[in-house]
Amino acid sequence: MRDVKLILEYDGTAYGGWQRQKGVLSIQQVLEEKLEVLLRHPAKAAAAGRTDAGVHALGQVACFRTDASLSLDRIRKGLNALLPDDIAVVEAAEVPERFDPRRHARGKLYRYLLWNRPSRPALLRHRAWHVREPLDLAAMRAAAKVLTGEHDFAAFQASGCSAKTTVRTIRRLRVGPWEPEKEKKGKPDPSCLAFEVEGTAFLRFMVRNLVGTLVEVGLGRLSVADVGRILAGRNRRAAGQTAPASGLTLVRVEYDRAGQNEP
Amino acid sequence: MRDVKLILEYDGTAYGGWQRQKGVLSIQQVLEEKLEVLLRHPAKAAAAGRTDAGVHALGQVACFRTDASLSLDRIRKGLNALLPDDIAVVEAAEVPERFDPRRHARGKLYRYLLWNRPSRPALLRHRAWHVREPLDLAAMRAAAKVLTGEHDFAAFQASGCSAKTTVRTIRRLRVGPWEPEKEKKGKPDPSCLAFEVEGTAFLRFMVRNLVGTLVEVGLGRLSVADVGRILAGRNRRAAGQTAPASGLTLVRVEYDRAGQNEP
Repeated sequence: MRDVKLILEYDGTAYGGWQRQKGVLSIQQVLEEKLEVLLRHPAKAAAAGRTDAGVHALGQVACFRTDASLSLDRIRKGLNALLPDDIAVVEAAEVPERFDPRRHARGKLYRYLLWNRPSRPALLRHRAWHVREPLDLAAMRAAAKVLTGEHDFAAFQASGCSAKTTVRTIRRLRVGPWEPEKEKKGKPDPSCLAFEVEGTAFLRFMVRNLVGTLVEVGLGRLSVADVGRILAGRNRRAAGQTAPASGLTLVRVEYDRAGQNEP
Repeated sequence: MRDVKLILEYDGTAYGGWQRQKGVLSIQQVLEEKLEVLLRHPAKAAAAGRTDAGVHALGQVACFRTDASLSLDRIRKGLNALLPDDIAVVEAAEVPERFDPRRHARGKLYRYLLWNRPSRPALLRHRAWHVREPLDLAAMRAAAKVLTGEHDFAAFQASGCSAKTTVRTIRRLRVGPWEPEKEKKGKPDPSCLAFEVEGTAFLRFMVRNLVGTLVEVGLGRLSVADVGRILAGRNRRAAGQTAPASGLTLVRVEYDRAGQNEP
């Protein structure tokens, strides 16, 4: 038996999220079906993060077990030939037995894109949240500082969610211009913002709730002090709206050496 | 009568290019149809550049004439409400009478994206050319230098094209990592490259032919000296392949003051 880890890139627009569910097509279902075709046996895939419907990934990690003797290169190429064009396998690697992509993750990096101008975006319409009113970047950055570090993030989990503990650590929460569409040597385009959130683990909807709350701060509807109170109050209803799923991308999942390419 | 200039953003994936043609949906047709709904009279739209099928725009410029008294803000908002979600009006501005977005343009900036890794891209599948084999960035940069400046670009125009003169000036031709998907503080992702080409005017397929030729250099199939010879030889068949349309984006069109927002 071998345990194989895949790094997956996908456009989540057409899917009901990572996890299998009735009546909606999920990334997991598509991947498992193609694995079965390739490996000639039913396969279960487990992922590092259960991305929600519409959420994208550049570096989702998914694992499966097989006794097939296909090389890693054949696995990667075979899956890329079988998978639809909005899902791609970037890498395939062997991992130690019983490697658990979710429990063994040391950290995750999410990026949230926001288009801040009067007109809606066309090219990034499935990748960014459109906010028309101007945002106060300095205020959002000050609020992001309040949220960085180890805190009880109960106010930022999905309502009805029942995680054992709601204490999490945000290592980094950066808010700034996203630079892809700017011209080199030109000024960065202030209309496209990226929120980069790096942490050990996240509660359901946590990143989107953090972004939604920071946007309330950017719009002047919440103060930086309010954000501190919301965090301390641990009450979901006090925090801002959940930012739309389409702005969110799981960029990377980190493991320590043991979970890396060499067993 | 007023002349109005629009800055347009669009995802060219679903269209047969800017220009109206039989049997294919064009950006021009869609825009003119929506203008007619908004203005209540037939309208003709002229653009700065005739982007080909599948080519995108962040800053295409299109002009139309009207005697409607709608404010510029109403025009922008009205069009954005009427247009499909892959076309957006970023800005609407008055321009002097007889302003010609193509003839009065002082320069254009195009960006060409290329995904250079063994696995195909998923998120940018409609925005980037996928080249599997590793590319020699230093060689491509040296060849880009040969192409920069004023030259007769006959070897890089579309075959069968009959421009009056094929002399053009490339002000800047930058090849380097495209940084949007990289992590801040992390190393730039060498798998995503951008070619930024700025010039006064371009021949048909010129940017895509330049990129195709630079990629041949990156793959070691052409030397930097070969590129000088191709340029001097003025023979289309000597240059590299035409890079696929989907990698190309018209980023910006420049005008001098007279063509700007104030008449």
